[in-house]
Amino acid sequence: MSENTLEELRNNLRQFAIERDWDKFHSPKNLSMALIAEVAELVEHFQWLTEEQSRNLDPEKLAEVELEIADIQIYLVRLADKLQVDVMAAVEKKLAINAHKYPPDKVRGSSKKYSEYK
Amino acid sequence: MSENTLEELRNNLRQFAIERDWDKFHSPKNLSMALIAEVAELVEHFQWLTEEQSRNLDPEKLAEVELEIADIQIYLVRLADKLQVDVMAAVEKKLAINAHKYPPDKVRGSSKKYSEYK
Amino acid sequence: MSENTLEELRNNLRQFAIERDWDKFHSPKNLSMALIAEVAELVEHFQWLTEEQSRNLDPEKLAEVELEIADIQIYLVRLADKLQVDVMAAVEKKLAINAHKYPPDKVRGSSKKYSEYK
Amino acid sequence: MSENTLEELRNNLRQFAIERDWDKFHSPKNLSMALIAEVAELVEHFQWLTEEQSRNLDPEKLAEVELEIADIQIYLVRLADKLQVDVMAAVEKKLAINAHKYPPDKVRGSSKKYSEYK
Repeated sequence: MSENTLEELRNNLRQFAIERDWDKFHSPKNLSMALIAEVAELVEHFQWLTEEQSRNLDPEKLAEVELEIADIQIYLVRLADKLQVDVMAAVEKKLAINAHKYPPDKVRGSSKKYSEYK
Repeated sequence: MSENTLEELRNNLRQFAIERDWDKFHSPKNLSMALIAEVAELVEHFQWLTEEQSRNLDPEKLAEVELEIADIQIYLVRLADKLQVDVMAAVEKKLAINAHKYPPDKVRGSSKKYSEYK
Repeated sequence: MSENTLEELRNNLRQFAIERDWDKFHSPKNLSMALIAEVAELVEHFQWLTEEQSRNLDPEKLAEVELEIADIQIYLVRLADKLQVDVMAAVEKKLAINAHKYPPDKVRGSSKKYSEYK
Repeated sequence: MSENTLEELRNNLRQFAIERDWDKFHSPKNLSMALIAEVAELVEHFQWLTEEQSRNLDPEKLAEVELEIADIQIYLVRLADKLQVDVMAAVEKKLAINAHKYPPDKVRGSSKKYSEYK
């Protein structure tokens, strides 16, 4: 995996926005909209595929999907920066919650939501 | 920022899914759906706020938004893993494309899309 | 307003799919993905606009947005048909629930969610 | 199918918003966000189901999905009203475009997008 970190990405994106005077557009509200629009482009790639087909994309489609994933990562880091959220710290917090919410013995092989286990 | 990397997160999520026998649910198609559902929860937090309000969340709301950001990061890394996509390498590729597409002199202060500059 | 009904639209869409042998793609799962991808195209039109700008679209943009709205209506009716859901009957049910959940005296001028009033 | 029309629904929603002083929240920008959040709740119902399972929802789940469909229809009509778009007229326009874009002989049995046929 690339050695670059989310912190470096955050700094790159700050610089990118400053150079283009784009900060004024980057309210968290607006960035959440841009983020979901990017994710929808990803969803669009998969909408008529079977699950099996989605596991075996041809190289051309995979290259497109790869760039969509990049767009999502970029907007997510940008949004987190604007909210002064540390993404990886938030992830650690959420993983701890998930480990508690979904004990392996209780949920093995089931996709039922947490609420249905309470 | 946390020192943990996306690579460690990827490995954690693999282990988490194996322990719960959840791999079978994690087709890229399904993960793209889970991802957009998480992003929509984020959007929901902002939908009735002004842009200004979205920049100044109260601590309780910010804590909720933080966990939504974590969920998005988690599903994005999981999806990328299933497609054998290196997220940060994809990001570098995309940043290079963006730098070329949006030269500062041409786009300063404007949010017009690339297609409108061609 | 046009006199055409959702029922006529449903019938048109059935015919359209049969003539193209597209029924096999139209599982509710897939249609939900197509639907959200269309809504995201709508969101994309508004993401960098202020609320005020979104109320005053120029004619060219409005014409594009109009067709996105059509796409959403089309996929919604198609999805409902596949699930044998009567859209307008569902709407009546939901309006009754909403009237009960949001009594005017209690929620006037506030966008707080129902859960916060309970 | 219910005899109620989208026009009646539009009028009901206007009244509903006026009684609650909610008009100020209902910019097209905000309504597009509310709309996609509702569609995501629909997607969430289907995300871990197979296509086959999505065609055969149990009655409890179907009842939930029905109300999500209603929410989507409600926000779509509200958004269209705020933009002074006639939904069914837009649909007719779009159906004519689609009939032209996807001639049965050319696309039968294929889900390829229009752009790939040009």
